[in-house]
Amino acid sequence: MLKEYFRERAALVERELNRLVPVAGYPELIYESMRYSLFAGGKRLRPILLMAAADAVGGTGESYLHMACALEMIHTYSLIHDDLPAMDNDDFRRGKPTCHKVYGEAMAILAGDGLLTTAFEVMLSQPGVDHELIVAVSRDFANAAGARGMVGGQVVDMLATGQSLDAKTLKFMHQAKTGALFKAAVKNGAILAGATPRQVLLLSEYAEQFGLAFQITDDILDVVGNQVKIGKPVGSDSKNGKVTYVTLYSLDGAQKMAREAVEQAETALAEFGEKSAVLKELVRYLVTRDS
Amino acid sequence: MLKEYFRERAALVERELNRLVPVAGYPELIYESMRYSLFAGGKRLRPILLMAAADAVGGTGESYLHMACALEMIHTYSLIHDDLPAMDNDDFRRGKPTCHKVYGEAMAILAGDGLLTTAFEVMLSQPGVDHELIVAVSRDFANAAGARGMVGGQVVDMLATGQSLDAKTLKFMHQAKTGALFKAAVKNGAILAGATPRQVLLLSEYAEQFGLAFQITDDILDVVGNQVKIGKPVGSDSKNGKVTYVTLYSLDGAQKMAREAVEQAETALAEFGEKSAVLKELVRYLVTRDS
Repeated sequence: MLKEYFRERAALVERELNRLVPVAGYPELIYESMRYSLFAGGKRLRPILLMAAADAVGGTGESYLHMACALEMIHTYSLIHDDLPAMDNDDFRRGKPTCHKVYGEAMAILAGDGLLTTAFEVMLSQPGVDHELIVAVSRDFANAAGARGMVGGQVVDMLATGQSLDAKTLKFMHQAKTGALFKAAVKNGAILAGATPRQVLLLSEYAEQFGLAFQITDDILDVVGNQVKIGKPVGSDSKNGKVTYVTLYSLDGAQKMAREAVEQAETALAEFGEKSAVLKELVRYLVTRDS
Repeated sequence: MLKEYFRERAALVERELNRLVPVAGYPELIYESMRYSLFAGGKRLRPILLMAAADAVGGTGESYLHMACALEMIHTYSLIHDDLPAMDNDDFRRGKPTCHKVYGEAMAILAGDGLLTTAFEVMLSQPGVDHELIVAVSRDFANAAGARGMVGGQVVDMLATGQSLDAKTLKFMHQAKTGALFKAAVKNGAILAGATPRQVLLLSEYAEQFGLAFQITDDILDVVGNQVKIGKPVGSDSKNGKVTYVTLYSLDGAQKMAREAVEQAETALAEFGEKSAVLKELVRYLVTRDS
């Protein structure tokens, strides 16, 4: 049932992204490079989280497609910039050459910049939502993407490579780098659909545990995963001298932590009942995924 | 009189930027690098234009400081990314080492990303303005900064280096790369202050001519300017094989075009009378500046 739901929602996001970042445009190369990374096989996890959170509080997730797609654009921009030679210097992402390998460094920087600005245009064009709410949600997205969120997390990550890193800093880094956008997706999906403050609080707790489980699983997959399915070489973290949940807590310890995060995420969903079935399945899927 | 006005408004912007991007923050390096470029001696032209346009239609420019500062952040982010080795590879800007020369390439990419996201946070936090208006203005800023504006213009610029370029493409490139943000500043300053559609139209025309005069003067200064005052080597355009207004129209031709653009900008201001004195002085100053 989740697979079907996933497929439908991802297809919906795909169609909308395709409309929002059209093939035709001048100069062509900027649209081509933005689309290359946008349609490189992403799971559309953030858009789906936003919509599922809206559903969980009795709303209609599909009403917020602009907001959902904006998150995917922010996510994609961050991957393009993170992959750059000056940053993580990754040649492959999801089994395909990274943006700068195909279009060169300058175009990859600009494709990222283009997606980030387009994300704001798109969220600020969300139909059917009060302007006050558009402003509040967009501001929160900007905050999650910025120096207090993704950008700040990437800086900590960069400075930490090859350094020893304590558990607290590792947690902060991931909360900022990937957790903030997951949380923004879930929290604002709920807010858009008119959630009560208590619902927002509970779903934020869900999102934090979701982010934690996601990251720990990522670190585990880097050790035990299948290179073909992950789309990048296994063991690249330890080769790059990165501190991970596995290097800090051992494989067993990390697996236990991931399970605990999933349990806490489920606990936060308890009072939403059947309406949160998708969110529940999503966090369970996270820790069993193989890529 | 203009000098005094300029100094006061620039100081106002400076103080607000200082408050909006604080020294203290974690990780420190992201705030330090963002501030390095933000306080590297910019003229604050875009914030001042926005405020002067609001004044010209009978508003109070200083009421829109968040919007004004957001433009300066977008401008600064674009300079940081344009200067990168993969792009224009400039070591100096306004006589100081560029962001990546001081903080390295990775940090410069992130400082730019941080400023761009902060710009959206800041404009979406503009106090005292209707949410509907905040959404409309911010969307227009995003559009001016994106693939249809600055990012698109930079792509055309990059692809054009070393290539022959016709007059139409040169004009498009500058309109997108620098003109769009000038226009967004003036147009939205007026809109924020409650301008009539006719006023918006006239001030948009002013801004387009302003942008044109600005760019032509830039190209002229690259040939006849004073290296110390400009802060970068004179003649770098022709050395880099760039087509400019001077290479296309000769020095005389370019100077004539700049004068004509200034005249047309002044014509667009005619019916605003005394209230547009600052906008008038600004465009006159443009073509007589020496850096």
